[in-house]
This record gives sequence, C-alpha cells and structure tokens, in this order.
Amino acid sequence: MGVVVPLDEERRRAQNAVAQLQALVAQDMEDVNEFIRERMASEVPMVPELASHLINSGGKRLRPMLTIAAARICGYTGKDHIKLAAAVEFLHTATLLHDDVVDESDLRRGKKTARMLWGNQASVLVGDFLLGRAFKLMVETRSLRSLEILSTAAAVIAEGEVMQLAAAKDTGTTEDAYMRVIQAKTAALFAAAAEIGAVISNRASNEEAALESYGRNLGIAFQLVDDALDYGGRSATSATLGKNVGDDFREGKITLPVVLAFRRGDAEERAFWQRVLQDGDQRDGDIEHATKLMARHGTIDATIARAQHYGAIARDALAIFPDSQYRQALIDLVDFCISRTY
Amino acid sequence: MGVVVPLDEERRRAQNAVAQLQALVAQDMEDVNEFIRERMASEVPMVPELASHLINSGGKRLRPMLTIAAARICGYTGKDHIKLAAAVEFLHTATLLHDDVVDESDLRRGKKTARMLWGNQASVLVGDFLLGRAFKLMVETRSLRSLEILSTAAAVIAEGEVMQLAAAKDTGTTEDAYMRVIQAKTAALFAAAAEIGAVISNRASNEEAALESYGRNLGIAFQLVDDALDYGGRSATSATLGKNVGDDFREGKITLPVVLAFRRGDAEERAFWQRVLQDGDQRDGDIEHATKLMARHGTIDATIARAQHYGAIARDALAIFPDSQYRQALIDLVDFCISRTY
Repeated sequence: MGVVVPLDEERRRAQNAVAQLQALVAQDMEDVNEFIRERMASEVPMVPELASHLINSGGKRLRPMLTIAAARICGYTGKDHIKLAAAVEFLHTATLLHDDVVDESDLRRGKKTARMLWGNQASVLVGDFLLGRAFKLMVETRSLRSLEILSTAAAVIAEGEVMQLAAAKDTGTTEDAYMRVIQAKTAALFAAAAEIGAVISNRASNEEAALESYGRNLGIAFQLVDDALDYGGRSATSATLGKNVGDDFREGKITLPVVLAFRRGDAEERAFWQRVLQDGDQRDGDIEHATKLMARHGTIDATIARAQHYGAIARDALAIFPDSQYRQALIDLVDFCISRTY
Repeated sequence: MGVVVPLDEERRRAQNAVAQLQALVAQDMEDVNEFIRERMASEVPMVPELASHLINSGGKRLRPMLTIAAARICGYTGKDHIKLAAAVEFLHTATLLHDDVVDESDLRRGKKTARMLWGNQASVLVGDFLLGRAFKLMVETRSLRSLEILSTAAAVIAEGEVMQLAAAKDTGTTEDAYMRVIQAKTAALFAAAAEIGAVISNRASNEEAALESYGRNLGIAFQLVDDALDYGGRSATSATLGKNVGDDFREGKITLPVVLAFRRGDAEERAFWQRVLQDGDQRDGDIEHATKLMARHGTIDATIARAQHYGAIARDALAIFPDSQYRQALIDLVDFCISRTY
C-alpha cells in the first residue's frame, strides 16, 4: 500500500484554494502584519530580533487568517479583527518558541530555530514577552468574550503539551489518548482563532459554534497531516517540508502513524517500537525500518484517512452560512490542509 | 566596614510588621489560596503536581498580599480582589518557573526547583499554563483596566529578563542600566499588584498612582536587598536564605554589589571581576575574594542604602491615605523588606 497521492489536478486546485483565501484577506493581512511589526517592538534589541526571525520566516499565517476570514464571513465591518488576528499570531509564535526549546529542535521552516541562534533562555523569555503583548492587544479590543476564549485556549495548549510530554515515551498510547493531545495542543488555537471572528461580529451563538467547530476540526486534520508528513507522508523531502523528515521519530514522539503501527504490528515489531521510541535506543537504518513497517500496515494512509474524516466535519460545519467567496475559500482551505506538500 | 546589621529590636519590629499585615489580610488570603488550589487543577496530573510544588513551598505571597491590602486601603468591599490576587500569584509563579529554567537554578526556597524534579520542559509548559489561567482569572473580574495593567506588566517582566540576559556578562554595566533591569523584572509586578487594588475599587487616579508608586519602589528595594543577601548581606547562611549564597556569582549575574565593586575597584580588581563573571573562569576561593572586595568597598552597605532610599519613596507614596491599620502595615512592610533575613 502506497501513500495517498492526490492527482496533480487536485493538488493544483488545493494550492489554488489557499491563494484565493490569501487574495480575499490580503488587505486585512497587511494590516495584521503592520500591527505585528509595531507590537513586537521593544527597546531591548534582542526581543524584536529573535521574534521577527520566527514571525518573518515564511509561515502561512493560517491562524490569523482564520480570525480574519471568520469575521468577514460574519459580515464584520469594524477594525478589531486585525488586533485579534495579530494576538493569535503572537500566541502561536510564543508556543512555537517554547516548543522548540521543549523539543530541542534545530530546524523550523527550513531555518535554524531561534534557540539555536539566541539560545534556549532568550527563546523562553521572548515567548513570554509575546504572550504578554498578545493579551495587551486583546484587551485593546475590549472584547471580554474573546479574552476568555483565548486565555482558556492558552492554558489548554500548555496542558496538551504537558500531556504529550507525559505520553511521549509510551508506545502503548491509544488513538483516543493521542487525539486528546492534539485537540489541546493544536486544535484549541484553530478553534479559538475562528470563534473570536464570530464573537466580535456579535453573531448568533450557532454561527459562533459553527466557526469554533470548523476551526477545531480543521486543526485536527492539519495536525494529523503534519504527523504523516513527518514520516515523508507524500514522498516529501526535508527541503520541501522545511523541517527534518523523521524529527518526531528522533525525538521519540508518539504520533498517530506510530500508534497505529504499534497496534497493528506483531510482537517483534512492538519490541522494535519500544526499543527505538520508549528506550530511545536508535541505530542506523532504524528510521528506514520504521517507515517500512508503517507502509506494511498502511498507517500513513490511515492517518490521512482520519484527517479526511475531520476535514469533512469542518466543511459541514460551515453549511449554515450562505454561499459566499469566504465560505468557499474556507471550504477549499480544508482540502489544502489535507493535500499540502509544505 | 561591616554590613549594616539592624538592632535586634528593629529586626523584631520589622518581623512583627509582616505578621500584622498577614493578620489583617488573613481571611482574604485564605480565599486567595482556595482560588489558587481550585484554578491550578487540571486533568493532566503533572500540571498541579508541579505547580503546587512551587506554590506551596512557603513563599510569603507578598505580591497577592499587596493587591489585597491595596484594595482594602481603598475601602473595597467586593470580591474581585481575591481573583486578581490569585492571578498575580500565578503570574509570579510562572515567572519563577521560567526563571529557574533560564538561570539553571537547583534550589529555591530551600527546596529542589521544579525543573530538577520534573525537568526543564515541564517547567516551561506549566509556566505557560499558569499564565493562561492567570489571564482567565483576570477576565472573570471584567476589569479591562486591570487586564491592561497586568498584561503590560507581563511583557515588561519578560523584557527585563532579556535585558538581564544581554547584560549578564558585562561587568561594565552601569548602575542606571542595572536599575532598568530590576524596574522591569521585579518592580513592574509589585507596582501592578498594588495598582489593581485601587483600580477595582474605582478610586481617584491619584490614589491609583500612589499605590503604583508604593509597589514599584517597594519592589526595587526588595530586589536590591535580595541582591545583597545573595552575597550573605547580613551574615545570612544558605539555610536561612533558602537558596545558595553566591548563586548570582556562580551564574555570572551582574547585580548592584558587583556593579559598584567593579567601579570602585582598581585595575587588578576589575581584571578579577572580568575573569570570574565575564569570562566565567571561576576557581576555588574566588567567591571569598569577591566578598572581601565587596566589604573593602562597602558595596553591600551601599546596596542596602540604595534600598533604603527607594523604601523611603514607597513610604511617602502612601502619605495621601488617611491613617489606618492597612496603611501602617504597608509602611511597616517596607521596613520588613529591607531588614528581612529570609
């Protein structure tokens, strides 16, 4: 069983989807970027230097785009979605800075991580600085409900990371336990980013819930595809991924492709997974063997199939909105997240 | 020149001062502790385990006490000061967890640091969790002004820590530059903790400013005394301090006793400070030599004299309030902070 490779046509359409969404929100996103530049300023030079290294490293700004698009689909005409979107990006950037310290990562988006250039200490502290600035931005919008949603998400994200830390070395992790981790560490921020777009638009609670659900399920799909890509999902290479293929493996992370390979494997295979991930005893050729076992049991395919399931829920969540360019772009974004090659 | 040792009588009075303040706020602080216990709960067991290790390690709860006392001196009769005080303690605890990671500290308050027991990774993440929960508590009070003050403080504290990181190895740091660091990393939270007590009481801006000033100057005095104590200030021992004497020295931190010793020393002495702190080349007997140089130039005395200067400003800031038990207790607290032995 090979991995699911979409037809070139499908892939082009998916790529196109993100380009369309980007075009729709281009003006707003310019304002968001302006706020980001302005609000990461500090009289301590190392702060904006380190922060901008990551913020300007070519991330897709997916989460702030969700806030903007959600506000627009709700017909919002004010200006506060810009500040909230910038706050979401700061929150996300703070999480990445701390993640790279926790995971001891060397590369992100194809560049050296901030901790490799400025050290772990500065990465922790600049993350804290961005968290503080994120809340300051939210406060300026005076939207207590948005503040509640985002502060709750901030705590949930951290809880998810701790959960992952505790489960990191347990090859017997169930799929359910793994899903709880990614619901918290990834999907919570996607959900919050989309939901606050409805909140500042003062929309009915069913529209708020629809956008929350869209964001949450998109986030789950996004993370599952990420996990598949880390094992070369669709014959991706280190260069196209912007991070090392097999990072999760080397860090001993238990992700869905591993959870399934462990469960579907025989005693000998389980002993292998325990040695390389639980005991951390990795040798030459182990990653190739791991990939072979995943192919044997089709666990990359299964992971992408799971992602498609959550993607379908995300799409259906938007059905209550009347047809519009924004709705179409958000629906197409689901396809992009599932078929993305970077 | 010896260090300034207060008469036993003075020391007793100062100790007494804190006991009096503690008695005045005892009921409120019980409620604060109840909220702290409740809000650090998580379904991820490691989160409250790690958090309570530090939160229940016998800290004096100075910062939340400031919020409570400030609200009471302003005649506040509501309940929100409890939540804000708990939020202040969470913010402070998050900072300590991250500080211990950044400083690679082994001991705090006489106990092993959380990072020694649960690792750096969990300490970073549980700090983030507490930050999220702190903001959630603030949001519940619906006081946007308090949220603004505390989110600003959170960013400023992190900036101060980065500033210290950048200056850490520079023995040529000026006293002014050093003061900017401690204004940010320590005094900002003391100032915010006191100010929000006035904010939720809806007091006139001069009372808000008075409490902000009291907190800021108390915080500066507190930090300067801490720096003096780290070099055994008042013949303190590792056991009475609850941390290792000379920690700052070993970590190459440039604090005021060093700043002054470097400036007041001759070329040979400056070469010594550069070797041990700038180049990090420390040998047996260096810490004793450092202490001797500080005694020769009276830099511990001078640091405590500086602390007394800021303490006096803090006391005078409270003059606009009518006499009350709370005002007296806050004034006495200044003496306690300066003469404390732990």
